[in-house]
Amino acid sequence: MTHNDDHKWVTTKRKEPILFNVILFIFQVFMIICFASLTGYDRNEYTGSEDPDKFDGGEVQERVHNFYGYFRDINIMIFFGFGFLMTFLRRYGYSALGYTFIISAMVSQWSVLVNGFFEAWSYSNKHGEFPSTWIFDMSSLLQGFFCSGSVMISYGAILGRVTPLHMLIMGIIEPIFFFLNVFIGEMNLEAIDVGGGMYIHLFGSVFGLTVAWFLTDRKSKECTDNAPSYTGDNFAMAGTLFLWMMWPSFNAAIAPLGEPQFRAIANTFLSLTGSTVATFIVSRLFSHLGNKLDMVHVQNSSLAGGVVQGCIAHMNINPGGAIAMGFIAGSISVCGYLFITPKVQRKLHIQDTCGILNLHCIPGFLGSIAAIFAAIKGLNNPEMYSKVEFEQIFRAGDSQASSNLIATMVSIGLAIVGGLLVGFILLQLKKIKGLKSKEYYQDSAFWILPVDYPKDVATV
Amino acid sequence: MTHNDDHKWVTTKRKEPILFNVILFIFQVFMIICFASLTGYDRNEYTGSEDPDKFDGGEVQERVHNFYGYFRDINIMIFFGFGFLMTFLRRYGYSALGYTFIISAMVSQWSVLVNGFFEAWSYSNKHGEFPSTWIFDMSSLLQGFFCSGSVMISYGAILGRVTPLHMLIMGIIEPIFFFLNVFIGEMNLEAIDVGGGMYIHLFGSVFGLTVAWFLTDRKSKECTDNAPSYTGDNFAMAGTLFLWMMWPSFNAAIAPLGEPQFRAIANTFLSLTGSTVATFIVSRLFSHLGNKLDMVHVQNSSLAGGVVQGCIAHMNINPGGAIAMGFIAGSISVCGYLFITPKVQRKLHIQDTCGILNLHCIPGFLGSIAAIFAAIKGLNNPEMYSKVEFEQIFRAGDSQASSNLIATMVSIGLAIVGGLLVGFILLQLKKIKGLKSKEYYQDSAFWILPVDYPKDVATV
Amino acid sequence: MTHNDDHKWVTTKRKEPILFNVILFIFQVFMIICFASLTGYDRNEYTGSEDPDKFDGGEVQERVHNFYGYFRDINIMIFFGFGFLMTFLRRYGYSALGYTFIISAMVSQWSVLVNGFFEAWSYSNKHGEFPSTWIFDMSSLLQGFFCSGSVMISYGAILGRVTPLHMLIMGIIEPIFFFLNVFIGEMNLEAIDVGGGMYIHLFGSVFGLTVAWFLTDRKSKECTDNAPSYTGDNFAMAGTLFLWMMWPSFNAAIAPLGEPQFRAIANTFLSLTGSTVATFIVSRLFSHLGNKLDMVHVQNSSLAGGVVQGCIAHMNINPGGAIAMGFIAGSISVCGYLFITPKVQRKLHIQDTCGILNLHCIPGFLGSIAAIFAAIKGLNNPEMYSKVEFEQIFRAGDSQASSNLIATMVSIGLAIVGGLLVGFILLQLKKIKGLKSKEYYQDSAFWILPVDYPKDVATV
Repeated sequence: MTHNDDHKWVTTKRKEPILFNVILFIFQVFMIICFASLTGYDRNEYTGSEDPDKFDGGEVQERVHNFYGYFRDINIMIFFGFGFLMTFLRRYGYSALGYTFIISAMVSQWSVLVNGFFEAWSYSNKHGEFPSTWIFDMSSLLQGFFCSGSVMISYGAILGRVTPLHMLIMGIIEPIFFFLNVFIGEMNLEAIDVGGGMYIHLFGSVFGLTVAWFLTDRKSKECTDNAPSYTGDNFAMAGTLFLWMMWPSFNAAIAPLGEPQFRAIANTFLSLTGSTVATFIVSRLFSHLGNKLDMVHVQNSSLAGGVVQGCIAHMNINPGGAIAMGFIAGSISVCGYLFITPKVQRKLHIQDTCGILNLHCIPGFLGSIAAIFAAIKGLNNPEMYSKVEFEQIFRAGDSQASSNLIATMVSIGLAIVGGLLVGFILLQLKKIKGLKSKEYYQDSAFWILPVDYPKDVATV
Repeated sequence: MTHNDDHKWVTTKRKEPILFNVILFIFQVFMIICFASLTGYDRNEYTGSEDPDKFDGGEVQERVHNFYGYFRDINIMIFFGFGFLMTFLRRYGYSALGYTFIISAMVSQWSVLVNGFFEAWSYSNKHGEFPSTWIFDMSSLLQGFFCSGSVMISYGAILGRVTPLHMLIMGIIEPIFFFLNVFIGEMNLEAIDVGGGMYIHLFGSVFGLTVAWFLTDRKSKECTDNAPSYTGDNFAMAGTLFLWMMWPSFNAAIAPLGEPQFRAIANTFLSLTGSTVATFIVSRLFSHLGNKLDMVHVQNSSLAGGVVQGCIAHMNINPGGAIAMGFIAGSISVCGYLFITPKVQRKLHIQDTCGILNLHCIPGFLGSIAAIFAAIKGLNNPEMYSKVEFEQIFRAGDSQASSNLIATMVSIGLAIVGGLLVGFILLQLKKIKGLKSKEYYQDSAFWILPVDYPKDVATV
Repeated sequence: MTHNDDHKWVTTKRKEPILFNVILFIFQVFMIICFASLTGYDRNEYTGSEDPDKFDGGEVQERVHNFYGYFRDINIMIFFGFGFLMTFLRRYGYSALGYTFIISAMVSQWSVLVNGFFEAWSYSNKHGEFPSTWIFDMSSLLQGFFCSGSVMISYGAILGRVTPLHMLIMGIIEPIFFFLNVFIGEMNLEAIDVGGGMYIHLFGSVFGLTVAWFLTDRKSKECTDNAPSYTGDNFAMAGTLFLWMMWPSFNAAIAPLGEPQFRAIANTFLSLTGSTVATFIVSRLFSHLGNKLDMVHVQNSSLAGGVVQGCIAHMNINPGGAIAMGFIAGSISVCGYLFITPKVQRKLHIQDTCGILNLHCIPGFLGSIAAIFAAIKGLNNPEMYSKVEFEQIFRAGDSQASSNLIATMVSIGLAIVGGLLVGFILLQLKKIKGLKSKEYYQDSAFWILPVDYPKDVATV
């Protein structure tokens, strides 16, 4: 293999890789021990009369059947979708793909345990006894992807300004806050949030923006490598499209069977088409160079329709309502890229590389508010749902609307607290062994690079 | 972000974006109103005795279960497959992906309504009463993808010579003709066409070639940007492969359950392997530079086996027959690229950028003819099918062969009429605010571009 | 289209394309005849009382339902995953994608026949009568992908040093050995190998390494085009990620329904996360340029966790055990790339372009050994499995461990014999009409190329 000697100027940072390797190794050994001693596979209840030749696989197979298709789709969203969406930067493709890969992989493991702990706690609250083995099944593995999604959203804000070590620390701490939030909102408040509008998008983006506040400085703002490339934008579209195409699975994965699951698919899809239409209209309306389209908007705002359906995709919101929600979310998202993000960077000193404010935070918040109204409407018009559906969706009964309001506030609050904690730790690390400003938004600090690695944009 | 000032020469066309935005906005508002007032979600028939803890989701869940996997696969074909397949041009990646995205998204919405209208009409013909709510389910959402597929096929012929406004107008008008054709062929003639060999491939390609006739001029023929790039060809292969891999789902999606569905999968897959083999043989046999392979053939003709099975993938055509059909379709398709397309361009003045004549039109026509023979054979040998299958496939009974013959002719006829209408409108628009010849086959007229946007091939 | 005249120096080899075309054409005609005369579609047993409106599709639909999702995923792995994984080379993208495409397509056809023959033989051993029609169903089509996977693994070792004709010959001969091995191991020894740890990975890699021994010379070792590109590495990551994401489907596809199928998914997924973590740790630990990450490791060793679970993913190995196995396999795999592959090339004169030794051979061998121990443990602790599971997994009963040991040895032995045969044939061909050393690792000998085809690295 041939290497690019142009990049020799990067000082070898000895401390960062040592800490990274030691922490990750200890983490992995800890995982192996915990999994071996605490967890167990999903099991069938056997009657003993099963005939091997005709056995249909029992309840376990039913769960595989109900969830594995969604599991696979969301797997694609997390590892391929997020990974490639972030390859738009000229010189940051390896890092975008690589850190998404390693951090999502470790979060997927860690999630089984953290989720298992909170589920065990929830169980012990109800049954008075803490289970010795935490059984995991397809849907607990799915939770790992949801948590990874949340961490990847946070990553979007600080893309290009972090070391692998930073990401590792965020990947260890954020899941604890994530599942604590799910524990409060889902298991205790019983709020409505079928696709993680609050728990994943709102939480992950507020968390990420808080962390980004610590990792923004004058030099990072001026870095010329924070720019897309033509090839990179084509790769990023592959990420966008797989996120867009698999999003109905994301919102339907844990929806109750039957009409709610169908509506989750239909509403998410219609809403995505609405946000895509809005993106093209608003991008052309405002773009500064002769009404041209901007790839940044197409790559991101077209997805706002999936985010805004996060909480209520499974509800009876009328198909026209789904398109309208997507259209509004997409429009606001493009406006956010054009008008809010630059202001947030200048005034609040929060640099948000991928614009998660516009893709996840604002649409996620809109969806969370919509859930409150949808809950009020559903409680006042119970004929909108069958008896079965009503019991499955309105788990908190008459207090559903206030449950959702509280869960929204808790999501924001916990995200800020967690973000402050992680941001503070990363800032300390940055002082000791962070990136030089020359190393922002590029792979060369941490990757062996081929000869055709793009040159600094200043020299183009 | 950094922009490429090389492209400032592109005159800002004020009228095109205004018209595009106004029409698309009105379209979207119209969609929201119509969806809100006319459509309804798929519903279960409840008995009232359902136990929420054990409810299996009813018929709606069964339809989700039967169709969602295919829905997802075809989603990938339309948005990722077609989008990336068309990124082979050197300087047209954003447009290929972007216009596929917006037009397919809007067609997917529009289709639910147009399809709903014709289904309601069909219902009123049978039951004497026009339904006030048009219920849509997984399979009607699927129809939206089929229609989008048809529009994307048409797009292939005029790729690089259209503005977003052109595409928008085609995206509004073509679905009306598409569903009118389906209404006639599928609902009235009850022709055999399980995977849209006639309704999607033949119709879409004839439509597109007719439109292309209006959009071909001397300058477009000579444009040096109508050339592939190495990176673009690799991207295009991602599109090809996803189309290829998901095609069995495309042809099986609405096939009757059981043997027809299995045969749709098996025949499509075997036929695709046959056309792939043929592509490599014929491409090497004739290629003008020392028996080398041509990526254009590999990207396109390898898919001819899927198109040719469009009508009859689910029938009992013998596995060897499936391979043979694929092999023949693939061979003809490569020959088409080598010998027919240049002639059509020179003699008929129809420039066909992606060669849809060879990928969709000829194989689609072959498949339509094959359906007539398969119908005759099936009617003469009813023992080839079980009683159940026979009733499901031969819906037109003894007149099945003539039904299919008529449906084929209607598909061609309606496609020409629709294509003439759209082509005429686009030509008028072109005179007022079309592309300059300098702007053919490149993104710079409508997209904000990064610094590494490829230079004009003349300057390479 | 514009062509790159820089590559005119490549002598047109008249014999290679003629032989390629003639052999492939004869092969295809032979396939069509054999399929037409020997094979039949999967069929339902009908009772005659089926009501067309309510017919649920019978057993055939059940098999479609159980297998088609996996079929589609593995389709993605073979054609997209392997194809793109091999696009990392600077100037070999077309060949990587193209040869994967054609060879996997032809092997998929060929496999139905070869597998059908051995299944018929197996049937005649039991029932004394050789069936006249070889019925194929979803799971026999799956076998075609497994065999293609094996051939693609072998291709990895010789990537860049073969002509299409070479690949064609390997694609015809290797499946015969592959299915002979499956016949012995699976049908006769009844060894445990749910995801092809022995039959696919171990067999395919030993086969490929043996062939590579014949195709290694001094010039191929020194070729400067055997180097990755930045864009190529991003494409390759798309291949890696789809392999990674779909791997649970690969190992679960033919696992018994119920707990074994769930465990196959869970163990494979956990093991893959373990090997991904290991890859990042070990790559940073040893990499020669300042503890930087190496894309070669990320692209390959992260997948070792899937390979190592090949035999026993469906067994009760404890979730912690699955992570640990993945971690160990990933660690060894990276070490293999760093320390073993260079030595094997220098000392044994086996050049292994993709490092299949480290990704498939060593992890596959580890998994095969693990299966022996898992069999011993399961036989000694039958309470680890339900009665149903035990009968399904331990088909060889008390001799399960020795069955697996023998099957491992047979897999290695047959792979060497087959590899010697193919290698010898290819070497003869190479003498007559092989590649010039200038033509190694690049597309120009066999493909029409666009103007931006990357220049020789020596001239960069």
